[in-house]
Amino acid sequence: MNVTEKFGRFLYGGDYNPNQWPREIWEEDMRFFKDAHINSATVNVFSWAKLQPAEDRYDFSELDDIVTTLARENVEIVMATSTAALPAWMVKKYPEVARTDFEGQQHRFGGRHNACPNSPAFRRLASALVERLAERYAGHPNVRIWHVSNEYGGECFCPRCEAAFRNWLKEKYGTIEAVNKAWNMEFWGHLVYDWDEIVVPNALGDGFDGGEKTAFAGISLDYRRFMSDSILDNFRMERDIIRKHDPDAVVTTNLMGTYKGLDYFRWAKEMDVVSWDNYPRFDTPWSFIAMRHDLMRGLKDQPFMLMEQTPSQQNWQPYNTLKRPGQMRAQSWQTVAHGGDTIQFFQLRRSVGGCEKFHGAVISHAGTENTRVFREVAELGAELERIGPEILGSGSPAEVGILFDWDNYWALEYTSGPNVLLKYVDQIHRWYEWCYDHNVAVHMIPADADFSKYRAVLAPVLYMVKPGVAEALEAYVREGGTLLTTAVSGIVGPSDNVWLGGYPGPLRALAGVWVEEWDALAPGQSNSMVFGDGTEIPCGMVCDLMHAENAEVLARFGSDFYAGMPALTRNAFGKGTVFYAGSVLESKDMDPVMGPVLERAGVSPVIPEKTGLEVVCREKDGMQYLFVLNFRDEPQCLPDSLAGLEDLLSGKKTEAGEVLSKWDVRILKRAKED
Amino acid sequence: MNVTEKFGRFLYGGDYNPNQWPREIWEEDMRFFKDAHINSATVNVFSWAKLQPAEDRYDFSELDDIVTTLARENVEIVMATSTAALPAWMVKKYPEVARTDFEGQQHRFGGRHNACPNSPAFRRLASALVERLAERYAGHPNVRIWHVSNEYGGECFCPRCEAAFRNWLKEKYGTIEAVNKAWNMEFWGHLVYDWDEIVVPNALGDGFDGGEKTAFAGISLDYRRFMSDSILDNFRMERDIIRKHDPDAVVTTNLMGTYKGLDYFRWAKEMDVVSWDNYPRFDTPWSFIAMRHDLMRGLKDQPFMLMEQTPSQQNWQPYNTLKRPGQMRAQSWQTVAHGGDTIQFFQLRRSVGGCEKFHGAVISHAGTENTRVFREVAELGAELERIGPEILGSGSPAEVGILFDWDNYWALEYTSGPNVLLKYVDQIHRWYEWCYDHNVAVHMIPADADFSKYRAVLAPVLYMVKPGVAEALEAYVREGGTLLTTAVSGIVGPSDNVWLGGYPGPLRALAGVWVEEWDALAPGQSNSMVFGDGTEIPCGMVCDLMHAENAEVLARFGSDFYAGMPALTRNAFGKGTVFYAGSVLESKDMDPVMGPVLERAGVSPVIPEKTGLEVVCREKDGMQYLFVLNFRDEPQCLPDSLAGLEDLLSGKKTEAGEVLSKWDVRILKRAKED
Amino acid sequence: MNVTEKFGRFLYGGDYNPNQWPREIWEEDMRFFKDAHINSATVNVFSWAKLQPAEDRYDFSELDDIVTTLARENVEIVMATSTAALPAWMVKKYPEVARTDFEGQQHRFGGRHNACPNSPAFRRLASALVERLAERYAGHPNVRIWHVSNEYGGECFCPRCEAAFRNWLKEKYGTIEAVNKAWNMEFWGHLVYDWDEIVVPNALGDGFDGGEKTAFAGISLDYRRFMSDSILDNFRMERDIIRKHDPDAVVTTNLMGTYKGLDYFRWAKEMDVVSWDNYPRFDTPWSFIAMRHDLMRGLKDQPFMLMEQTPSQQNWQPYNTLKRPGQMRAQSWQTVAHGGDTIQFFQLRRSVGGCEKFHGAVISHAGTENTRVFREVAELGAELERIGPEILGSGSPAEVGILFDWDNYWALEYTSGPNVLLKYVDQIHRWYEWCYDHNVAVHMIPADADFSKYRAVLAPVLYMVKPGVAEALEAYVREGGTLLTTAVSGIVGPSDNVWLGGYPGPLRALAGVWVEEWDALAPGQSNSMVFGDGTEIPCGMVCDLMHAENAEVLARFGSDFYAGMPALTRNAFGKGTVFYAGSVLESKDMDPVMGPVLERAGVSPVIPEKTGLEVVCREKDGMQYLFVLNFRDEPQCLPDSLAGLEDLLSGKKTEAGEVLSKWDVRILKRAKED
Repeated sequence: MNVTEKFGRFLYGGDYNPNQWPREIWEEDMRFFKDAHINSATVNVFSWAKLQPAEDRYDFSELDDIVTTLARENVEIVMATSTAALPAWMVKKYPEVARTDFEGQQHRFGGRHNACPNSPAFRRLASALVERLAERYAGHPNVRIWHVSNEYGGECFCPRCEAAFRNWLKEKYGTIEAVNKAWNMEFWGHLVYDWDEIVVPNALGDGFDGGEKTAFAGISLDYRRFMSDSILDNFRMERDIIRKHDPDAVVTTNLMGTYKGLDYFRWAKEMDVVSWDNYPRFDTPWSFIAMRHDLMRGLKDQPFMLMEQTPSQQNWQPYNTLKRPGQMRAQSWQTVAHGGDTIQFFQLRRSVGGCEKFHGAVISHAGTENTRVFREVAELGAELERIGPEILGSGSPAEVGILFDWDNYWALEYTSGPNVLLKYVDQIHRWYEWCYDHNVAVHMIPADADFSKYRAVLAPVLYMVKPGVAEALEAYVREGGTLLTTAVSGIVGPSDNVWLGGYPGPLRALAGVWVEEWDALAPGQSNSMVFGDGTEIPCGMVCDLMHAENAEVLARFGSDFYAGMPALTRNAFGKGTVFYAGSVLESKDMDPVMGPVLERAGVSPVIPEKTGLEVVCREKDGMQYLFVLNFRDEPQCLPDSLAGLEDLLSGKKTEAGEVLSKWDVRILKRAKED
Repeated sequence: MNVTEKFGRFLYGGDYNPNQWPREIWEEDMRFFKDAHINSATVNVFSWAKLQPAEDRYDFSELDDIVTTLARENVEIVMATSTAALPAWMVKKYPEVARTDFEGQQHRFGGRHNACPNSPAFRRLASALVERLAERYAGHPNVRIWHVSNEYGGECFCPRCEAAFRNWLKEKYGTIEAVNKAWNMEFWGHLVYDWDEIVVPNALGDGFDGGEKTAFAGISLDYRRFMSDSILDNFRMERDIIRKHDPDAVVTTNLMGTYKGLDYFRWAKEMDVVSWDNYPRFDTPWSFIAMRHDLMRGLKDQPFMLMEQTPSQQNWQPYNTLKRPGQMRAQSWQTVAHGGDTIQFFQLRRSVGGCEKFHGAVISHAGTENTRVFREVAELGAELERIGPEILGSGSPAEVGILFDWDNYWALEYTSGPNVLLKYVDQIHRWYEWCYDHNVAVHMIPADADFSKYRAVLAPVLYMVKPGVAEALEAYVREGGTLLTTAVSGIVGPSDNVWLGGYPGPLRALAGVWVEEWDALAPGQSNSMVFGDGTEIPCGMVCDLMHAENAEVLARFGSDFYAGMPALTRNAFGKGTVFYAGSVLESKDMDPVMGPVLERAGVSPVIPEKTGLEVVCREKDGMQYLFVLNFRDEPQCLPDSLAGLEDLLSGKKTEAGEVLSKWDVRILKRAKED
Repeated sequence: MNVTEKFGRFLYGGDYNPNQWPREIWEEDMRFFKDAHINSATVNVFSWAKLQPAEDRYDFSELDDIVTTLARENVEIVMATSTAALPAWMVKKYPEVARTDFEGQQHRFGGRHNACPNSPAFRRLASALVERLAERYAGHPNVRIWHVSNEYGGECFCPRCEAAFRNWLKEKYGTIEAVNKAWNMEFWGHLVYDWDEIVVPNALGDGFDGGEKTAFAGISLDYRRFMSDSILDNFRMERDIIRKHDPDAVVTTNLMGTYKGLDYFRWAKEMDVVSWDNYPRFDTPWSFIAMRHDLMRGLKDQPFMLMEQTPSQQNWQPYNTLKRPGQMRAQSWQTVAHGGDTIQFFQLRRSVGGCEKFHGAVISHAGTENTRVFREVAELGAELERIGPEILGSGSPAEVGILFDWDNYWALEYTSGPNVLLKYVDQIHRWYEWCYDHNVAVHMIPADADFSKYRAVLAPVLYMVKPGVAEALEAYVREGGTLLTTAVSGIVGPSDNVWLGGYPGPLRALAGVWVEEWDALAPGQSNSMVFGDGTEIPCGMVCDLMHAENAEVLARFGSDFYAGMPALTRNAFGKGTVFYAGSVLESKDMDPVMGPVLERAGVSPVIPEKTGLEVVCREKDGMQYLFVLNFRDEPQCLPDSLAGLEDLLSGKKTEAGEVLSKWDVRILKRAKED
């Protein structure tokens, strides 16, 4: 059974902080929740200072009342642990609990997500709090999900972190010689002879540009890994305390999509279920939102919880546009389509003050259910209550895997050259977007995935090839798999040292090409890929000057001094095939590349027709649930292959040619073909 | 008698720092002053280090000589107190006198305007200096105006300020519980239990983006208030010492228009006369300059001193264009038109070195009177000498008040959402600009103004409604007043906590509308207001989704999902009327809004005709002085209603249709009608 | 004999750091070097930590092996001293060796070029290392060139530098009164009474905008001079140790063209030969590259070493484009044309890791000679081996000198006003570019040059006129010289205090004009210069409102209120002539200005024809070597005057009308005419 299925109902609710209001408001809230079909509430996210007014004093009375009130209404409580914001008294008493920033400045009391992960005082006091919380609430029938801290992230560069980093390195490398070799410290005479000569790579060490750049990728990469691990240790510390008190508790923390700072694939292994916060900008492409859902689903290859979205408006974007009527519903169903098994809002009641007071909420500052937003929330709640349980825990089939890897994310963006515009997530998204536009289902997969589950694997900008990855890809292709990779792949090993002997290094045999040089193109410059049939598509940013060694040339560069050199190749390797695209493409131009890839791999889109609709499939118990969504301004006709199916939302059978307006949703059920 | 009238002459002069030159130059200067009709000089602005070479040593000999020299020529001396720049020895001996910046860095010796306002050493030493200055020069017949410090501003975040801030808070709130409530510290678990848990909201606390943004508006707002008060205490400290020695002294300090850091309405209460420094950029709109004059005049509802302007060029702008021939004269008369009772330059003689050495001066580096600039200064001097006394102290009638409030300025710009482009002064200026373009006289008024003095009150983006303000506005409208307010009004109380129950909170009954939501528009996006007669004007940035409760709908939104919802309303309230504009407009589009407002209020422009000329009225002893200025590239004809009047400048009677070229000025005198 | 001639061969090679690879790779390298005609290698640039693993331990074994290996192959070794990057143990043991940055933060271990120049520990330890290096390798037959540190630059603001600065000031000024006068400290009350009241002008003192701006140009200018001198002291310290061991050693360090931080004219006096690193961006104008070569040549008025260029690609530019086939060769010959007597690459073998791992190298990561880049390097090597010795040490004749002065560079850009767009190097380049486009040979000369060597001297934006310079220019013109200067010249003396009495101060008599005012134009604004014959050319940025005192007016402003005022003048002074251009021009518009200048001066371009080719002359032993290069996309015909000459590269005689494609090069030899 999937972890989200254990609740038996589709959780619908969100963040609830009634502390700011008197009790009569709480009662009103309970009525609103019922009206809106809200059945879950996340509580206690930022209450440490309230729960523990001083080191030797705890007070759970208000939280008890909140739990009692919610439980009375049979609301599922997502119990947060409150450790994401330090109490002021603690920062004053133990200044070490606050972080030291990239510039080397020790912070004082302020903001949130501000604890040094390696502070003994923080770890001791956070443990003590969670111990008491777990003692008190674990096992409560309405407290079955625990939400540790909140939106973990950031980094610290304090002396305690420096000491812990040195220990982490000792553990990893064993000898100082191994460190020197891993980081190639001969370069620029950086050799260290003793562990305590290693200093944190902030602005006073090897880092610069606010941490975006570094003089030595090796140390900065390891610091990112160390920091991700340090914070993960904080999570594990709290999780283990909770588990001690309730071995069946579902323990999660809310992630943030393509957030750079933490290696979420490592994190997911420690989490019972992935939950995440979906906050697109007004102009974020729909494909990008979908990709982040798929990435979050892919972290554990399981349905996820949507821990936060806004019912309508955000407040911290430059332009906080309203979600249009129907948009929140469509986005919610898109979430479910991509594997979301809960829909939770930040927040249930809009705060009276503080910096997020204009963030959208189910209950507005007007304090009434007579709002557009409340009505939309309530309508969706009714739908989810009705349809949700049927879908709960269903799978998300896909024949294509796209490799996403935080080590690559970090390493590619630390590297100086060839082109400053080469950004990891953007590059991955370009290929995802093409699949999205063609309704080709995708799994976002880690570098250590079981590739054999996919007909095709896309591994764009696989700049860093970690130990075992090339071998796994070779095995996959040898057995018949189809792999696509691109320029700026196969370049470095796990510490950002180059794989010598010719690019793409360990992928050279696989791809059957040797990349002798790469050209970098400035904005406004472009080249093209010219195919045998005369088709020509623009490309740019980086152009590989490559030689086909075993590979067949599918397209050649159209201009510049390397016109005629291979630009796109296909290599037979074992029973499989490897495509290599030697430049950067926009998704709208990828048809002549992706067409052959999918054809070779035998990948089919979810429906045979090309359509402007998003069509996504979930599966359970032999049934398919096809989510059909229109995110375009123009109305779209339902493709013929989707006619005659039951729409769970309306209860009606679809008709060929029926029109979906913007934000329209259908959930069509059909038996899975074998 | 108005404070500027006590001098009996129109003060014309400026900043004079002869310290850099030998005595023979001083004598030459006296001749130049006479030639240029200069009758006042500001001295001693930055001489602390000269006057006090060491803690136990003072030397006033040079200043004595300067005073003697100027007095001999019957020049009115504006005596500065020199405390705006710390001596180097003092910073070395008492490092605390220098400020700690937003990033938490303690500064050393450098720059100016650099004293920590809460430094005991600074306060002690500044007092001691001023005591000696006042002892020595107070009562001198030519020293009747005192100029305390210079261009007060900036902020400090040192431990002494932190301690003083805690005391200021104790005074204001009494209990720590009241602080928690005011700042809504429940949010993000920010509760404090002891005064010394409160830390200054700089980059190491709750501030970010260089101080432009904050995690908690409550603390940052209070810190701004505290810092404005702290610096005001410095002013009061010096003022009181001067007053002790000369109870009749006129004490001022030079303000800076719409400078954000200090609450000038609070300051003005402590100043005998407002003085200010007018430094527009080459592309600052003339309406913006006029607005700042009116704001400075409005601080005390009195004529002001123009303490600084450049005779021609600035030096610290990116592009320091020359004032064109006639421009300085026109700008000076514009100043007088808006209530200026002095014209003073920075500076009289151009400095030989230092960072302002290329700032314009009456006497250039060439050291001769044979320059265009000197000639223009001399010509204006003659005019002011002739005409000034007649105008001195005259009033500035207006039927429209525009509310300007530093608390709103701060709070609106700290707030996160809905739209980052929403800037306070820009929003106020849009409405002012419409009045300016239509020659509707305006008073810039504080939130605690006597509204009953105005036929119409404009209160755009009245985001924060402080205690008593809604009540005062209600009383004003009930008695027949006309009020216009706009989107993003009535949102929060004095600590930035939302007025619950539906926007615009305490203005809801007044406006007769309920704003359910607000949409934010990104650049390039727009909506429109469509009037009953089909008129359509563009609007954007923020659009209120509002319901007319009692109000009449004058215009509705033209597009998007809220097309047809009210965009502009008019509400009858008591004997008066309230207009509510539910979006942001550009002044050029406001005719269909402002036309009805003025019509309802019975407001008349200064002249009946529409004209491209600026026409401003001052009044005294039953006479009106109409300043007619052409700031447009195109020549403008004199409107008929201004024909046949005496022009004080030329001594001639105006003729219908006579043409004013760019920079031309007329000062027309007529009897006031009753 | 020129210093580069002593090697008897044209040095071709580059930076070689074999430490990262095993010995078998070294042997492979030797074979590659031979194939590529590489005969020199720079070693030991960043090996301090390797050579000295602890304070009391040195290990030269690896360096010995490198030297032995290279010497065996008769490679000329450029021995670097390794002091450009501090060992980690040293920073840990002596934190003072690391710099304190502009923000006042003491750095820790990281990066390179990071030593405080005034740290006693650094000076002691660097001396000790160089002592041992020199003991060991000085006098080795293949070690005749020493490369001290690397790319000196940056600055430090630590307490040790502060103390040293005070001493430097005592030395320079003698009394504190002289300091106050030099820096005009009366302004803003900045007077200091004791040396230790002077604090470094960083962000905590008088500096701001990251050091680009300052409140007091005087102190910041002196700090730049002091810092340049301090770092130069580091160079001298190492040089003297080397000289002690080998009085014949050629000692250099690699400079960086128009790098702002160091006064290279002062530096060159201490260097045996100038070497520099040529790293243009993909879009750097060819004239700009040429100007930097000429500047480097001009530092000692001698041929220079090109210490670094990339064989193909850089890595730290935003867009690291490949050098096109033939481009590296053309750029190398351009270098030789402008006085380069070596061609050395960074780097010989591409590094396996570290931040420059994607910087181009002769031997790529593929580790093979079978690359385009290697082939091009080898082909050029063969050409240089064949032709180089003939050219080695030849002179670079020029009739025009362009004055370039670091004091002006610093002072002009510190100054606030009149126009933020006025950048020193850009202004100089505009005039250089005109000469370049017309194949007029130029020497870049210092303010204390012997002007009499030139028919014409161009001194654009000679903002600061230091003692003696005006007198020297007067003497030069009086004897018949032709001088051109421009707006924003003659303004200040050596400490940035204005020359009183009318601009252009000490140049007023020379130019015969008085500049009464200067207007600043914003982007998008322009004026024009109108000549007697009706010719009109655009001008802008700054426009002088000037009066011809003795000068003849050649052009007048075309618009604005100063239309008709002089814009370009010519003044007879003694036997010579002075042109004054009262505004900023683009080089493409300068024909009507530069035509008369060259005509008056009797300057001839290298060839009589106008051509799109770059044509540059070197001379030796009565022969001229004409370098003809095509850097344009369009093919260019060889001018007639160059027909019938021997091309050293092809061995053929040129024909009239023969076509040079992009990147084509000819080296034509002819006897010098007298």
